Amino acid sequence: MLPTPVLLQAQEELLNYHGRGASLMELSHLSPEFKHLFKRCSTLFRELAAVPEEYEILFSHGGGQMQFSMVVLNLIALRPARKAQFVCTGRFSERAIQEAERYGNVEVLASSAEERYRSIPPFPAERVDPQASYLHITTNNTAIGTRWHEWPTYEAQVPLVGDMTSEMLSRPVDFRRFGLAYAGGQKNLSPSGLAVCIVRKSLLGHALEITPKLLNYSTLVQDESLTNTPNTFAIYIMRLVLEWVQEQGGVKEMATRAERRTAAVYQALERHAGFYVPHAHPQHRSTMNITFRLVDERLEPEFIAQAEAEGLYGLKGHIFLGGIRASLYNGMPIEGGFALAEFIQEFARRHG
Amino acid sequence: MLPTPVLLQAQEELLNYHGRGASLMELSHLSPEFKHLFKRCSTLFRELAAVPEEYEILFSHGGGQMQFSMVVLNLIALRPARKAQFVCTGRFSERAIQEAERYGNVEVLASSAEERYRSIPPFPAERVDPQASYLHITTNNTAIGTRWHEWPTYEAQVPLVGDMTSEMLSRPVDFRRFGLAYAGGQKNLSPSGLAVCIVRKSLLGHALEITPKLLNYSTLVQDESLTNTPNTFAIYIMRLVLEWVQEQGGVKEMATRAERRTAAVYQALERHAGFYVPHAHPQHRSTMNITFRLVDERLEPEFIAQAEAEGLYGLKGHIFLGGIRASLYNGMPIEGGFALAEFIQEFARRHG
Repeated sequence: MLPTPVLLQAQEELLNYHGRGASLMELSHLSPEFKHLFKRCSTLFRELAAVPEEYEILFSHGGGQMQFSMVVLNLIALRPARKAQFVCTGRFSERAIQEAERYGNVEVLASSAEERYRSIPPFPAERVDPQASYLHITTNNTAIGTRWHEWPTYEAQVPLVGDMTSEMLSRPVDFRRFGLAYAGGQKNLSPSGLAVCIVRKSLLGHALEITPKLLNYSTLVQDESLTNTPNTFAIYIMRLVLEWVQEQGGVKEMATRAERRTAAVYQALERHAGFYVPHAHPQHRSTMNITFRLVDERLEPEFIAQAEAEGLYGLKGHIFLGGIRASLYNGMPIEGGFALAEFIQEFARRHG
Repeated sequence: MLPTPVLLQAQEELLNYHGRGASLMELSHLSPEFKHLFKRCSTLFRELAAVPEEYEILFSHGGGQMQFSMVVLNLIALRPARKAQFVCTGRFSERAIQEAERYGNVEVLASSAEERYRSIPPFPAERVDPQASYLHITTNNTAIGTRWHEWPTYEAQVPLVGDMTSEMLSRPVDFRRFGLAYAGGQKNLSPSGLAVCIVRKSLLGHALEITPKLLNYSTLVQDESLTNTPNTFAIYIMRLVLEWVQEQGGVKEMATRAERRTAAVYQALERHAGFYVPHAHPQHRSTMNITFRLVDERLEPEFIAQAEAEGLYGLKGHIFLGGIRASLYNGMPIEGGFALAEFIQEFARRHG
């Protein structure tokens, strides 16, 4: 979901970007207008996300899953063992692991697969291997509705890599805790087909020789993410989104709103505990995605249809869990969360 | 340049796609609405481009340059010699060659680099190696303004691969002459960050093991180009563009218009032959891109500035050649070509 003011501005200037008589989509990525816009987008992102100086901010094609390939291609050779450690907390962790296994030695330190990922597993700090090139976690699990509330701590000098696709800019993050963090744009940042990567400069320069040119972080650094034509429209929308986040009060305000939205929805679910079954363990609940089932699963299609009739879209669960999934990204007004909470209670009253 | 009716429709439904109360950018790529749109886009492309049944149409992230990697990763192992042959006709041929050299044995059969790519070199048909996995050409050279008017003919059973980025859908193509043809979207098809690839099914299944998942054509075939979230907005715009092309009379009509536009501009340049110097050899001129210099190069900045003042944008030449480059893609009305021709003559009269 994108903020309405962002869409309105995009609509207004769709045929005439800044008086140029042309759409932003039609301007060259080498034009002064686009370069200015891109620089502003990057600077604003650094400011809002509080990305320290010693980190690069890179923009690449393809979303979070392209990063699954890029992370392993660029980091696995950091140490001779070519080993990556993972904590597996959902479907996207699984996919990241599968891709990493193709290029390196993968070890899964912990997994909550057996309980259908309803929690973040205890972190075995002592098992972090000082010979590992990196340790990968999925900070928020979109399909499942869990998140890491605290980052793992461990003594070994192993860079932590975080897939933040579905929660980037929804909570303050101390990026110094991470060697690399990335996010596909389409949840909180932009339309699809764009990814942002925050990487500590000292980790660069170790890409495998087989790395395709556009997947090499060092190439992107060198070319300031303009090695080829980037997804200019997504970058344009992202700049508008970032300006909106800034106006609203920044990432801290996004976090407050997210907490209020999800609290309202979870309270509604808990008030009708005999009717709904939330999936995520209370201590590991995401503030972006909420998943639950109806005790009478046969009512779920009706729940989804009636919600749609009231303007609450996109509630069908991920194919993995089924049931209901509500995604309350930054663009969702608090009222959207309250409306969903209200509907949840109303539906239970009518059918309970 | 995108057709104005396409931009107007995109503008109208930017906040409310087909009455869904949401932007297309906000809909899931797995929603029925998007899947329907995507299928329509693919079907219409097949129809308009006359892509035969035995070819797949694939959509991927990243534009033409991502295809430089994908082509070699997917096709180089077609034959044990792992050899690719190229004809080098411009800056993008060079880049495709550089990327191919990283994964295979590359042989450049012919190049017009020594004459700054002003022509397509004679094709040495006898040098096509039956052991080569493919032969690669750049069918239209954006920065230079040349194109292959006729496809190379040769006896060896070697698949021809065509980079058609800057001329896809601007001329009728018999795709049976090609094993694979690709185009980044941002010239004639869509906004940036999307590529289309037409590939003969029998060539698939030979990707190198090191191929990143999203760069593997077979994966895209299997997942119907939905392995991950694609660039949904670009696909949406592409569908509108294709509908527009169809309404206008199809690819044949696009070709007629392109010929009329470029003929008008070249006639204007030739009428003032002492003032302008066209770069491309008359027999190899592109119908999409026209490059020329002013005899008095010092006047070029003024030419560009005055043109902009009259609403003729984007005339600054590619950094490789300098001078002037006019790109007259499908979205450019014939009148746009005539206006440029008029300006060219007027400017020469004033300063000649």
